[in-house]
Amino acid sequence: MKPSPLPAEFPVVGIVGAGQLARMSAPPAIALGIRLRVLAETPDDSAAQVIPDVTVGDYRDLGTLREFAAECDVITFDHEHVPTEHLQALEADGVLVRPGSAALVHGQDKIVMRERLGAAAVPVPRWAPVRTAADLDAFIATTADGTAILKTARGGYDGKGVRLVRTSADALDWLGGESGPAVPLLVEERVEFSRELSVLVARSPSGQAAVYPVVESVQLDGVCREVYAPAPGIHESHALAAQDAALRIAQDLEVVGLMAVELFDTADGVLVNELALRPHNTGHWTIDGAVTSQFEQHLRAVLDLPLGLPDQLAPNSVMVNVLGGDLAAIYPAYLHCMARDPALKIHMYGKPVRPGRKIGHVTVSGSDIVDLTVRARHAAAFLRGDINE
Amino acid sequence: MKPSPLPAEFPVVGIVGAGQLARMSAPPAIALGIRLRVLAETPDDSAAQVIPDVTVGDYRDLGTLREFAAECDVITFDHEHVPTEHLQALEADGVLVRPGSAALVHGQDKIVMRERLGAAAVPVPRWAPVRTAADLDAFIATTADGTAILKTARGGYDGKGVRLVRTSADALDWLGGESGPAVPLLVEERVEFSRELSVLVARSPSGQAAVYPVVESVQLDGVCREVYAPAPGIHESHALAAQDAALRIAQDLEVVGLMAVELFDTADGVLVNELALRPHNTGHWTIDGAVTSQFEQHLRAVLDLPLGLPDQLAPNSVMVNVLGGDLAAIYPAYLHCMARDPALKIHMYGKPVRPGRKIGHVTVSGSDIVDLTVRARHAAAFLRGDINE
Repeated sequence: MKPSPLPAEFPVVGIVGAGQLARMSAPPAIALGIRLRVLAETPDDSAAQVIPDVTVGDYRDLGTLREFAAECDVITFDHEHVPTEHLQALEADGVLVRPGSAALVHGQDKIVMRERLGAAAVPVPRWAPVRTAADLDAFIATTADGTAILKTARGGYDGKGVRLVRTSADALDWLGGESGPAVPLLVEERVEFSRELSVLVARSPSGQAAVYPVVESVQLDGVCREVYAPAPGIHESHALAAQDAALRIAQDLEVVGLMAVELFDTADGVLVNELALRPHNTGHWTIDGAVTSQFEQHLRAVLDLPLGLPDQLAPNSVMVNVLGGDLAAIYPAYLHCMARDPALKIHMYGKPVRPGRKIGHVTVSGSDIVDLTVRARHAAAFLRGDINE
Repeated sequence: MKPSPLPAEFPVVGIVGAGQLARMSAPPAIALGIRLRVLAETPDDSAAQVIPDVTVGDYRDLGTLREFAAECDVITFDHEHVPTEHLQALEADGVLVRPGSAALVHGQDKIVMRERLGAAAVPVPRWAPVRTAADLDAFIATTADGTAILKTARGGYDGKGVRLVRTSADALDWLGGESGPAVPLLVEERVEFSRELSVLVARSPSGQAAVYPVVESVQLDGVCREVYAPAPGIHESHALAAQDAALRIAQDLEVVGLMAVELFDTADGVLVNELALRPHNTGHWTIDGAVTSQFEQHLRAVLDLPLGLPDQLAPNSVMVNVLGGDLAAIYPAYLHCMARDPALKIHMYGKPVRPGRKIGHVTVSGSDIVDLTVRARHAAAFLRGDINE
């Protein structure tokens, strides 16, 4: 256990989880001379392929986490699935856990998050906890359109753990009959939003914060598909409100590291929908489109180094996710994509192709948002195998 | 041995040598999903710290090279010290060696290079091979100022293998008495140049070429210290001549991969001074300052993928090398440098600090070249320990 927050030598950052977020942390770590260790589920995980120092083990096992943390100066996360009580145990051991368990729980548990944001007067969709079918039906009865969004408080991502309901009969499996829900549930009103927004903010233990431009994200079936940076034509007061909310939440929760705040843009202003206390899909454009990428920023924040400039390098960047599709072998498609667009930045995650799975992303930057969007979409569709011109 | 120039799956690029150039190749390889293997001299080499697939072995041993190459789709180089005959043997085995031995020798042997450039009518400083003291004195007698530059044909870099001479008596150790020089020597006139320039060009096996903007480099004691991209105020005809020379040389030598062409800018035009058939110190600014970094471009070229756009992301980038100095521990200096300049891009090579050794570099990009230069110099001096404000 190393209590010093700022090591005298180049520090070791341990990342629990070895998915694409950990993988994309490797390039800035290499540049900065910071050493990474990852706790992977398998030796073939996305990040385990590219980082030399890999431990294969179960992040749900406290002993494994303790052994892993003992060889790191600070630990941080590729995902939010580490049990809160394990994080608390590590902190009690003296491990620098960043973000800390008290902040991270707001990215793990939507009920805790909603309660906290409400207490801090951050605008959120109307919501209620759900313990019984009657709770759910009572909430639905108050909505304008007779529908609502039912969510599991924990474990949801990429559209999982989210369901549109019109009656409690639509969710009997989740509600669990007389014994009650197997996992805590909450219900929200369906918000009439004009678009979805995201703001990245980084905060260091010293309290320094840096906020990125507000971006627009396009979700399909709960999965982020496209991101426009900055959000095209956003009302300036809405953009400022979104950045202000992100900064206030980061300070209120004492977040350390990067946090993504997802919001709904509505006629009446912005509403905070989700928090993720880690680098986020809506920030992948920063690798090629910002002075400091979200991955570098996260490393700087968890190490309590001064934060980098979050400014854009070009007026606009467009990112499109590459989902697994019909192309079993992606590599030959490179030839076409690179030849067609020499300014295209391709990022692959080293993951086997499975339909609908995020296997990479592409980013293009410039000034003509329509042109950028057409180019990024084309490349992503070609890498997916949807088109074959 | 895999004869196909374009693998169906993500290929393995083997890099002979594991210095900082191999290290800086890792980030674009991670993004592109290209796997790297390095042949390192020690497990602690700069690139061996950050790339999982490391073989420790002697690049002067053909058997070692053969075993290494057998597990790669293509091999390329961190340095130019692999014996030419070994490269030829690998090629005879069917290994894809890129650049090939026939091209690479022009980056290894200055006599071969000068003869070839002369034959191709590329302007070079006046020169002659030196076998005896009389050869050297005869050349010096023809110079305007009675001095000349004596060089070893092979093995020189960063000012090593280069000596200013006024008479053969200044180089008796190299001339070797009656037995003749231990290594082939050449002598050149001292060129009255206004500044030193460098042009990066990449060429793929298909013959596609991409040339970067002409940069100015500042050398001190034969070591590159600063690079300005693009070369400030360069006469447009000189810039075009430099790019044209680089493209012609790349085509004439059938270079594959990246080549750096170093030139003297004189009142009468540009003269080609050196060639390096690999990513080069004068191209480090491209990591942060160009759409496609020299390291990504080299990987794309050796894999015969279409080349990326070499355009600058900002009007100007300034790179300053960080040399080993008085600071034993660099990491704490980060705090100062990052706090002072949030737009600074710091790159460290993971090398132990030794006086004068290149241990990293910094780059800043923007529009005011004077401001950028002041900031980059300050950061490099602070990381070196020269200043401590």
